[in-house]
Amino acid sequence: MTFETVAGRAREAAYELAVATRAAKDAALLAMADALASASAQVLAANARDLGTAREQGTADALLDRLRLDEGRVAAMADGLRDVAALPDPVGEVVRGSTLANGLELRQVRVPFGVVGIIYEARPNVTADAAGICLKAGNAVLLRGSSSARRSNEAIVSVLRRAVASTGLPADAVAMVPGEGRDSAKALMRARGLVDVLIPRGGAGLIRSVVEESTVPVIETGVGNCHVYVDRAADLDRALAIVLNAKTQRPSVCNAAESLLVHADVADAFVPRVVAALQEAGVTLHGDETFAALDGVLPAGEEDFAAEYLSLDISAAVVPDLEAAVRHIRRYSSGHTEAIVTDSQAAARRFTAAVDSAAVVVNASTRFTDGGEFGFGAEIGISTQKLHARGPMGLPEMTSTKYVVTGDGQVR
Amino acid sequence: MTFETVAGRAREAAYELAVATRAAKDAALLAMADALASASAQVLAANARDLGTAREQGTADALLDRLRLDEGRVAAMADGLRDVAALPDPVGEVVRGSTLANGLELRQVRVPFGVVGIIYEARPNVTADAAGICLKAGNAVLLRGSSSARRSNEAIVSVLRRAVASTGLPADAVAMVPGEGRDSAKALMRARGLVDVLIPRGGAGLIRSVVEESTVPVIETGVGNCHVYVDRAADLDRALAIVLNAKTQRPSVCNAAESLLVHADVADAFVPRVVAALQEAGVTLHGDETFAALDGVLPAGEEDFAAEYLSLDISAAVVPDLEAAVRHIRRYSSGHTEAIVTDSQAAARRFTAAVDSAAVVVNASTRFTDGGEFGFGAEIGISTQKLHARGPMGLPEMTSTKYVVTGDGQVR
Repeated sequence: MTFETVAGRAREAAYELAVATRAAKDAALLAMADALASASAQVLAANARDLGTAREQGTADALLDRLRLDEGRVAAMADGLRDVAALPDPVGEVVRGSTLANGLELRQVRVPFGVVGIIYEARPNVTADAAGICLKAGNAVLLRGSSSARRSNEAIVSVLRRAVASTGLPADAVAMVPGEGRDSAKALMRARGLVDVLIPRGGAGLIRSVVEESTVPVIETGVGNCHVYVDRAADLDRALAIVLNAKTQRPSVCNAAESLLVHADVADAFVPRVVAALQEAGVTLHGDETFAALDGVLPAGEEDFAAEYLSLDISAAVVPDLEAAVRHIRRYSSGHTEAIVTDSQAAARRFTAAVDSAAVVVNASTRFTDGGEFGFGAEIGISTQKLHARGPMGLPEMTSTKYVVTGDGQVR
Repeated sequence: MTFETVAGRAREAAYELAVATRAAKDAALLAMADALASASAQVLAANARDLGTAREQGTADALLDRLRLDEGRVAAMADGLRDVAALPDPVGEVVRGSTLANGLELRQVRVPFGVVGIIYEARPNVTADAAGICLKAGNAVLLRGSSSARRSNEAIVSVLRRAVASTGLPADAVAMVPGEGRDSAKALMRARGLVDVLIPRGGAGLIRSVVEESTVPVIETGVGNCHVYVDRAADLDRALAIVLNAKTQRPSVCNAAESLLVHADVADAFVPRVVAALQEAGVTLHGDETFAALDGVLPAGEEDFAAEYLSLDISAAVVPDLEAAVRHIRRYSSGHTEAIVTDSQAAARRFTAAVDSAAVVVNASTRFTDGGEFGFGAEIGISTQKLHARGPMGLPEMTSTKYVVTGDGQVR
């Protein structure tokens, strides 16, 4: 099938999904969950073939781990679909409403986007997660995973499509982009008018290429060069705990801290302590002059302050004051999450006002910027752009709105 | 000055505007209004030079009229700025908030975009309108008008910048893109990272080229191939009044009707009446077989149903039922505004659910899709895209949000 055929079918499916009741959509989600659980063996067999090919091609262990499914991960996908079924339906929510002077009734109502494209990398669980979130919000989804996960994704999509159809909703609500490699991604990125929104999920390179090449509107997600700034008025024990948590609790994710800034007034008291604690936790520091004077700290260059390491590395610098911290963050941040540790109300107020990131955190770890932690129940990604959605995106962020205007003959 | 210098200054100004109080912004808006009113002669002199050049180049009368300023139009710009000053400040509004299980306080707060680019055509009044709306929402604005209005725009911007500076806010809050022609537009469209959002205001050609070439996120505005569907259950007197109003009250604007669909069951009763009334109002009909059988109705081709005439022309067709009207609209509509005239609750419900446009109107004219009519007080344009904002965009649509998360040492 050509891309246009698949996209056209998704459009027709989207028309049906847009007017499907919550009950119908939840029934489909539960059927998808049950079907995935029952077809675990089939999905794992397909995944084993993907893993075999990847191993033959000498794929790195970290990538193999992302690609790997097991009973537990398949069960987690099914549970994720059940969780989405339990969430409220965003479609139909009246966002704003009023009666105009001429008697017209104005309602701004949440409606689905229509057809959502997802471009993602090697994690096959994204296939089920994205399909479930899109369907609940009334959207058809066109999935374009990595070729290394092709057989896993095909197995999952085939199970999900059959389950959706068994409940009476259109199977084409969930579809894979036909073809492989760059061409299939390109078809999706150039499908303006056929696809309403494109969401890339993956590394910085993938996201940059989608943002630059796509004519379809894009929601940019997930690159996080997150900072922790330890203010002169910080409780230093608390600061130590927050820095350690933000850097080491799960270094491979976008809300992990990548850069530490310390106010000069507390540098003597804090820098040696935090370096020792981070080094003990296995972290390599890339520091400015003050930090690099300590044993084992590497000198930081421009590229270190700009880096999203996603590893047990952190850049570190001493700043003369809060305004210098703000300037440093404006220069290097990717606009994901920045934290300040301070007991000063004035410092907290200035930092949260001046730092323009999706999340600005006072006295807590950067690791909380997450749809689950924020209580959204499901998350399609974390937007780092300013248009449409910013920060963790749950179901409401997967919708648009329209105005419904009702009158009894009004003219101008 | 290079584009990068101007954009860099706008960014610095945006940092100041983002934390400016409402009082400071309103003072600047009122100063802008007063300065514009005082400088009316200077602005009109610049406009007269633009008009002279345009006339020498044989510019059409309709375009000359758009370009032309007079005392009344300058006063209207000043009044517009005062109206914006009177509107509530969208910045700082808490959109969502909760306390998480771990005690973290979560607030989703409206914040400015930062730097907004506006690309527009010959109307110099857009210069003041856009500057006022952007400033009130805390954004710096980079204006790129048409070269035919260059001297008018320069005069207006120079007055506005001085007024802003006189109140203590940065003059660079309002700036023109340096240079002329395609290059200056291109600089703006490629300024990803320097400019946060780009809004094209003008004809379909301008908007398409911005959407296709821009790497900066774009809000698409204003193309309206709006439909009026007269249902079998319509009150035909009401339908006639609505069709006439939607087509003729102001045919050159995006919310004017461009296409009429009539249910077959009322075609005999309605088609001759509506044709006679439209023709009497000076409208040329481009109709399907039923319509074209009447005197003076031209036969409609595919291109007529797709056309946004913006003139006293309308395409017209008879449809067998409501579903056929929905299919026709899905095929040809630009997603701006579609109206149904019906007394049937079932038909109204189905039409508003199935038609996916920025505004869906029941028993009223399409001409109501407008920020002023909707009570928004100010409008930067009408979005026909699904991302971020859809329909008339007022001040809240000119903002993004950020999450402010406050704790007392929480870690994961």
